Amino acid sequence: LLVSVRSGARVSMPGMMDTVLNLGLNDATVEGLARRSGNRRFALDCYRRFLQMFGDVVLGIAGEEYAAALEDRKKARGIRADADLDEEDLMALVGEFRTLTEQISRKDFPENPVEQLHQAIAAVFRSWNNQRAIAYREIHHIPADWGTAVTVQAMVFGNQGNQSATGVAFTRDPSTGAKRFYGEYLLNAQGEDVVAGIRTPDPLVQRTPADGSSLEEKMPEVYARLISTADKLERHYRDMLDLEFTIEQEKLYLLQARPGKRTGQASVRMAVEMAEEGIIGREEAIRRVDPDQLQMLLNPVFSEEEKQRVIREGGLLARGRNAGPGAAAGKVVFSPEQAVAFKKKGEKTILVRSETSPEDIAGMKAAEGILTARGGMTSHAAVVARGMGKSCVVGCSEIRIESDTRQMTVGNRVIREGEEISIDGSTGEVFLGRLLTRESVVHQALMDGKTSGEPNPLVESFTTLMKWVDSTRRLRVRANADTPENAREALAYGAEGIGLARTEHMFFALERIPTVQEMILASTTEERRQALAKLLPMQREDFGRILEAMDGLPVTIRLLDPPLHEFLPRHSKAQEKLAKTLKVSPEIVKAKVESLQEINPMLGHRGCRMGITYPEIYRTQVQAIFEAACALKRKGKDPRPEVMIPLVGIPEEFKRLRRLVVQEAERIMTRESVRLPLIIGTMMEIPRACLVASEIAAEADFFSFGTNDLTQMTFGYSRDDSGGFLRAYQELGVLEDDPFQVLDRSGVGRLVEIATREGKKRRSDLKVGICGEHGGDPRSVQFFHSVGLDYVSCSSFRLPIARLAAARAALESGRNQTERKGRA
Amino acid sequence: LLVSVRSGARVSMPGMMDTVLNLGLNDATVEGLARRSGNRRFALDCYRRFLQMFGDVVLGIAGEEYAAALEDRKKARGIRADADLDEEDLMALVGEFRTLTEQISRKDFPENPVEQLHQAIAAVFRSWNNQRAIAYREIHHIPADWGTAVTVQAMVFGNQGNQSATGVAFTRDPSTGAKRFYGEYLLNAQGEDVVAGIRTPDPLVQRTPADGSSLEEKMPEVYARLISTADKLERHYRDMLDLEFTIEQEKLYLLQARPGKRTGQASVRMAVEMAEEGIIGREEAIRRVDPDQLQMLLNPVFSEEEKQRVIREGGLLARGRNAGPGAAAGKVVFSPEQAVAFKKKGEKTILVRSETSPEDIAGMKAAEGILTARGGMTSHAAVVARGMGKSCVVGCSEIRIESDTRQMTVGNRVIREGEEISIDGSTGEVFLGRLLTRESVVHQALMDGKTSGEPNPLVESFTTLMKWVDSTRRLRVRANADTPENAREALAYGAEGIGLARTEHMFFALERIPTVQEMILASTTEERRQALAKLLPMQREDFGRILEAMDGLPVTIRLLDPPLHEFLPRHSKAQEKLAKTLKVSPEIVKAKVESLQEINPMLGHRGCRMGITYPEIYRTQVQAIFEAACALKRKGKDPRPEVMIPLVGIPEEFKRLRRLVVQEAERIMTRESVRLPLIIGTMMEIPRACLVASEIAAEADFFSFGTNDLTQMTFGYSRDDSGGFLRAYQELGVLEDDPFQVLDRSGVGRLVEIATREGKKRRSDLKVGICGEHGGDPRSVQFFHSVGLDYVSCSSFRLPIARLAAARAALESGRNQTERKGRA
Repeated sequence: LLVSVRSGARVSMPGMMDTVLNLGLNDATVEGLARRSGNRRFALDCYRRFLQMFGDVVLGIAGEEYAAALEDRKKARGIRADADLDEEDLMALVGEFRTLTEQISRKDFPENPVEQLHQAIAAVFRSWNNQRAIAYREIHHIPADWGTAVTVQAMVFGNQGNQSATGVAFTRDPSTGAKRFYGEYLLNAQGEDVVAGIRTPDPLVQRTPADGSSLEEKMPEVYARLISTADKLERHYRDMLDLEFTIEQEKLYLLQARPGKRTGQASVRMAVEMAEEGIIGREEAIRRVDPDQLQMLLNPVFSEEEKQRVIREGGLLARGRNAGPGAAAGKVVFSPEQAVAFKKKGEKTILVRSETSPEDIAGMKAAEGILTARGGMTSHAAVVARGMGKSCVVGCSEIRIESDTRQMTVGNRVIREGEEISIDGSTGEVFLGRLLTRESVVHQALMDGKTSGEPNPLVESFTTLMKWVDSTRRLRVRANADTPENAREALAYGAEGIGLARTEHMFFALERIPTVQEMILASTTEERRQALAKLLPMQREDFGRILEAMDGLPVTIRLLDPPLHEFLPRHSKAQEKLAKTLKVSPEIVKAKVESLQEINPMLGHRGCRMGITYPEIYRTQVQAIFEAACALKRKGKDPRPEVMIPLVGIPEEFKRLRRLVVQEAERIMTRESVRLPLIIGTMMEIPRACLVASEIAAEADFFSFGTNDLTQMTFGYSRDDSGGFLRAYQELGVLEDDPFQVLDRSGVGRLVEIATREGKKRRSDLKVGICGEHGGDPRSVQFFHSVGLDYVSCSSFRLPIARLAAARAALESGRNQTERKGRA
Repeated sequence: LLVSVRSGARVSMPGMMDTVLNLGLNDATVEGLARRSGNRRFALDCYRRFLQMFGDVVLGIAGEEYAAALEDRKKARGIRADADLDEEDLMALVGEFRTLTEQISRKDFPENPVEQLHQAIAAVFRSWNNQRAIAYREIHHIPADWGTAVTVQAMVFGNQGNQSATGVAFTRDPSTGAKRFYGEYLLNAQGEDVVAGIRTPDPLVQRTPADGSSLEEKMPEVYARLISTADKLERHYRDMLDLEFTIEQEKLYLLQARPGKRTGQASVRMAVEMAEEGIIGREEAIRRVDPDQLQMLLNPVFSEEEKQRVIREGGLLARGRNAGPGAAAGKVVFSPEQAVAFKKKGEKTILVRSETSPEDIAGMKAAEGILTARGGMTSHAAVVARGMGKSCVVGCSEIRIESDTRQMTVGNRVIREGEEISIDGSTGEVFLGRLLTRESVVHQALMDGKTSGEPNPLVESFTTLMKWVDSTRRLRVRANADTPENAREALAYGAEGIGLARTEHMFFALERIPTVQEMILASTTEERRQALAKLLPMQREDFGRILEAMDGLPVTIRLLDPPLHEFLPRHSKAQEKLAKTLKVSPEIVKAKVESLQEINPMLGHRGCRMGITYPEIYRTQVQAIFEAACALKRKGKDPRPEVMIPLVGIPEEFKRLRRLVVQEAERIMTRESVRLPLIIGTMMEIPRACLVASEIAAEADFFSFGTNDLTQMTFGYSRDDSGGFLRAYQELGVLEDDPFQVLDRSGVGRLVEIATREGKKRRSDLKVGICGEHGGDPRSVQFFHSVGLDYVSCSSFRLPIARLAAARAALESGRNQTERKGRA
C-alpha cells in the first residue's frame, strides 16, 4: 500500500496541499519497497522524504527542522550532495526524522498505513481553508464554497535512478499560446523537486542547437508516448493541459491532467486557434479568455532601440526565463513587506527573491514585476505572476541575493534596495536602471490599423477574437475621452462613441486659466458674461475637434462639473499675482477664494447646482457645442453631440437646465440654419437621482451612471480620505473588494438597478449607460449587462476588456436563460 | 345692481383678492344710489372708493396714484380729513379718478355693471396665483390645486353715517382662546378700513372702565343681535368663527363667516373646551390643533423681574396691541430686505413697519418679531404673525418711523437701525435693549409637575389635550438628550425614553479634552489604552447619571461618532500648548493633526469606521456603559441601556462591532454578577445601509434613522456648504422645502421605507425609530407613522409637537383606512 494523496480541487492553487507522497511507509514496509525495487538506498531515501513531507504537510512541522538535521549529517560526513548520502546515513536520518517528528508533534508517528492515509486526507481537506489558499482565492475571485476533492493514487517513483524522471508538460506553449508541446523534467527526481524550483529542470523538447539534455533525446520512446498521450488528452478535454508525469524505469505514468495556466497572450491565441481547428466553438473561445488577462496583450514593452542602447552600454545585468510577459521597471526590493511599503508610498518596485512562496503573494501583487534566482516556468513565481498579469523573470541564476544587507550581486556589480532595474518578462532580460517602454505589438497594430507590417499570430488571434466578441455582446461600448487624441485612441480600441467628455480639463489649460479666473471673480453677471465670451471660441474649437474625430458617432459632453474654487489659487502669493493680472485688489481675490471654500467640497456647490446659480456658464458651453456642431454639419460632417448635465438629484434641476440647453441650442441652430437632433441627458451620480429616476426619465433622453461619485455617496466614503480605513477594511475582511474598483452590487448596484428599471419603465427608449471607472471592470460589466444597461464607457485602454466582458456576460445570461427554459 | 365680489377660498389668505366693493356704479347708477340713500355725498364717496378699488384690484393701478390726486385736492381746498370733502370735491375726484384709470389702463372704464362684474370675478380667480398668495400658501403648506371660488353679494353700506358701521368679530378670543365674544368695529366705515389698519377700531364689547366707545354701548340692540347670531353660527359650524359684518342704518348684515385664525394658545384651549362642551369630539379636538402652533405655548416669555427692572429704569418704550404672543428681542430693522440680510448674517431682528403688507412676508419670516405703528388685532401684521408663531405687537401709535434715515422716534428717543429692542407679544409692551427671557407658563408647569400654583386654563387644556393625544397615537416618542438635565426636561415633555444620547459631548468637556487628546496622540495601542483608562470613570459617571434619570426607560447611547481631528487644536499656538502639556514635541502634534485632516470630513474616518480601526475606544465606552448599568441594577434600579453603532454601511461592520459590544458587556456583567438584556442596534444614516437593511437586521435589535446625515448623503449636500445654493433653490422653486427641515419623501423617505420594510421582514421584532431633526417636524412625523416606524426621537422642546403630530397621523391613517374599506 504505497499511495500518494493530492488535492482534487477544480483549480490548482498555491497553498493548497498538493501531494503527500509515499503514504504507507514505515519501518516494515520500507524493507518491502527495498526488495521490490532492488534498491535499498532508494527505499530509505523515499522513507526519509516521506517522513519530512508528512511532518511538514500533515503535522505542520517546519521543513527547516528536517533540513537542519540533514545539513548536520552532511557536514559531519563531509559530503555536499544529497545523492552522496549512503544507506547508513539515510538509516540514521530516518531515525532522527522520526524522533524529531514525534518530539515536535508530541504524538506517536502513525505506523499504520491506513492511519497515515486518513491523516493525509484530512490534511488535504483542511488545506482548502489555509491562509495561502484563501489569499489566492481572493485574488482570483474563486468561490470558497467550491471546496476540494481528494485524489488517492498508487505511488510511482521518478527517483529510482537515471532511467526514472519526473516532469511537467503543457500541450501548448503557456507563454505564447503557440501550438507546440512544451515542458520540463528532472532525471531521478520526484514531482516536488520540479515544482519547488530547487533544481533547474531540463526541457522536454530538443533545443536548437541540440545539447542532449532534453527528454526527446534522452528517452525518445517515452517522449513519443508522452506526446501522443498529451495529444489524445487535449482533444478529449478540448483545452491546453498542464500534465504531471513520472517515468519509473522508463515506464510513463501520468499523475495529473488539468487545464494549464497561461498568459493573456497564450490565452487569446489558443482560444482562437482551437476554435479555428474545430476543437471548440467560438462561444467557448470567448469564455476561455479571462478579460483581466487581456491587459497583458496591451501592456507596453521596452522599446527595442532603448534596449539595444542599454545593452551596448553594458546595462544588461543578466538573463533568466521569460515567465510573465510585459515590461516592468522599478526599485529593487527583497521582501514582500518592502514591496507593500514602497507601494503605499506610490513607488514602483521589482520584487527580487531566490524563489517565491505563497507567503509572498501580497508582495507580488504590490510589485510591478518579479525576478527570481531559481525555478522554472512552472515554479510558484512563474505561475502566480502569469495569473496576476505581472511581468516576471525566473531562474536567473546569475544573481546572488544577500537579504540581510538588502542587496544583490550580479558578477561584480552590487545593486542595493531602492536602486532601479528593469525586467522584460517576454525575453527574460534584466537591465540596470529604468528603461523607456514602447507600446505592445497589439496596441501598435490597433493604432496603425491593419495595413502595416507582416502578420503576427497574436495580433491576428486578437483581431479575430474581438470580431467574435463584438458580434456576441449586447452592451455597446464607449470611451471616456476629453481630447481629439484620446478620441482617436478610443476609436482604435473599438469605441462606439464617447460616453464622457469632461469639459473641466479645457478650463484648466494653462493659457485659459486666467480667463476662467476672471470669469469666477466677476462681480456682476455682465462681467462674467464678458469673460465667458472670451472662453467661447476656445471651447468651440475643443468641441469641434473632438466631434470631428468621432464623426458619425455619439459624443456625450458633460457640462462643467467641479466647484469653482478648484480654479482659484490657494496660496496668498498666487492670489496676489492673480490680483495683479486682473487689476483688482488682492483682498478681493482672497475674499472670493474664502467665500468659495467648502468644508466638504464633494458635497458642495458644483455640477448642475452651479449651472442653476450661474446659468451663463452652461449657456456659453452649450453655445460652443452647437456652434461647433453646426459648423461641422455645414462642412458635410455628421457631428452627434449629446449634452450631459452632471450631479442632478432633483427632477426640477434637470427640467430647468434642459430648458436652458434647448433654448440655447435652438437659438444657435436657427441662426445657423442647421438642424441637429437634441439629445440631453443626465449623469446619475447622486443616490437620490436613482430613487426619483422615473421623474427624471420623463424629460431625459439618457442616463449615464457616474458610479465613482455614486459609490462615494452611497457608502459615505470620500475617495480622498477613505484610503486608510478602506485598506484596514480589506485586510480585516469587512469589505471583499474595493468598491471603487468593483461595483458594489448590493448597495450601489441596487440603486443602478432601481434607476434603470424605473427609468425605462417611464420611457422605453431611454438610453442608459455608465461612465465611471467600473465601466472597464469585467465583473462590474457583467452586472451592467444583467440589469439591462445599453452601454458602458471606460478609459480607452480598458475597452477590449469591457468588450470581452460584455460578450461573456451575454453568453452567460444566454446560458442561464437556456437553463431556465430547460427546467421549466 | 350694486354687488360686492369676494374670494371664496377655503382659507383666508393675505394676497388673495378679498372684496371689490360697490360693483355696478357708473355716472348713471350713482345718482340712483344718491336717491335711494337720500345722501348724494355718500353716493359720490362710494363711487370714488369704487373707482380706486376697481383700478387697484382689477386693473392693477397703484393705490398711490389715487391717493396723490386725493391729497392734491385736499391741499388745494385747505382741508385735512376725507370727511370734510364736499359733494363738489367728490364730483371732481370721481372725474379725476376715471381719467387717471383710463389713462393708465389705456382702456375705457367699463360703464356696464355686468362687464364690471365679469372683470372683478376674473380678478378674483387670477389672484389665487399672485405672488403674495403663493408665498402664503408655501409658508402654510396649502395645496395650490385647491383653487378658489367667487362669492357675489348684494352691497350694504357701513359708511352711511353714524348709524352705520362695519366690523370684524370672533366668537371666542383668538389670542387666549377664552370663551368670550371679541371683536372690533369702525363707525361710518367700510370693511377695507378695518382690515387695512389705517384707522384704529374700537372694541365691540364694553371696556372696563366703560368709555362709551364700544358697540355694546353705542348700539346695544344691534350688538345683542350680533351676539346671538354669532352664537348660533358657532354651534352650527362647530368652530370659533371669524365674522365680518356691516351695520347699515342700524340693520345688521353678516358678510362672511369662516373659521377664525388663532394663536397656538387659543387653538389648544378652544379645541379642548369645545370638546368638553360637547360641541366637537376628542378626535376632532386633536385635529383642530396645528402641531406647528404648539410651539407658541412653549416659547419663552420675558422674565417678570427683568421686565419690572427695565420698566423702573425707564426702558419701557411704548405699548401696542398684543397680537402674537411670546417674547422676542433683536436689532431694529425697517425693511423686510434688511430683516433678511441680518438673518443671513445670523443676527436676530425686530421688523418695525407702519403697517405690513403681503410684500413683507419674507422679512416677517426672517425677523424674530414684528412691531407695527398702526392696525389692530385683525390687521395683516397680526394675522400673519400669529400664523407664523411669531411674537407681534401692532397699533403701537407712539412710534414714528423715518424710513429714509433708518430710524424711529418714540417721544424724544431716537432708535436707529441695528439698535436692540424687545417686544412682548403677549402684553403689547415694547422695551429698549435686549431683555432676559423666562420660560412659558406651560413649560414651567411641565417642569414643576402638577403640584405647584393655582390652576391655569391654558395649562389645563394643554394637559388634557396631551392626554388625549397620547391615547390616540401609535408612534412612541423619545428625546435626543445627552445630559441628566436634558433627560429630566425630556421626561417633563413626555419622552418615553432617550432615542439618542451622543457621547462626543462628554469627550468635549473642558476638563476631559486633554485626556481625549492624549488618547488620540497615543503612538501605540497600549498608550491609547492608558489614556482611555483615565476617561473610563468619567464616562461611567456620565452614563450612570443619565441611566438613573431615565430609570425604567430605554436610553439609546450612540458610541463615539465624530472624526478624531475634531478633538485636536487647529492652530499652531494651541498645538504647541498641547505639545507642552503632553510633553511631546510640537512636530508630533502637528504631524498628527495633519495626518488626520480630511478633504471631506463628512465622508471620512468617523463613526463605526473609527470603532473598527481603534476598537479600544468603543470597548472602553461599552465598559463604562455596563459598569454604570450594573452598579444601578445592584442598587435596585432599572437601567435600560441600548447601544447604538453609528455610520454603519456594511453588514460586516455591524456584525463585528456587535461582537465587540457583546464580549465586553458579557465580561462586565459576569464580573459584576448582574444580568441585563443586551440591546444593540445601529444608526441608519448611510444610503447603503438602507439598501442592505435586511442583512443588517439579521443581527440588529433596532434601527434608528439618522435622517440628518442620510439627507446629506442621499442628496449629496453638505449642510455646512449647501446654504447658498439651497436658498437659491427654494427661491427658484427647485426645492419646495428645505430637506433638512422637512423629510424628503421621494428620496430619503424612500430609503427609510425600503429599510423599514425589509428590516422588519427579516426580523419582525426589529424596533425602528428615527433620531434626526425630522423627528420633531409634523409632516415628517406623519410620514414616519405611515411607513410603520415604532418611534421618533427629537429635541425635548419639540416633543409635544411630535406627540400631537403622531396622534393626528394615527387619526388620518384611521380615516384613510375607513375610506378604503368604504370603497371596497
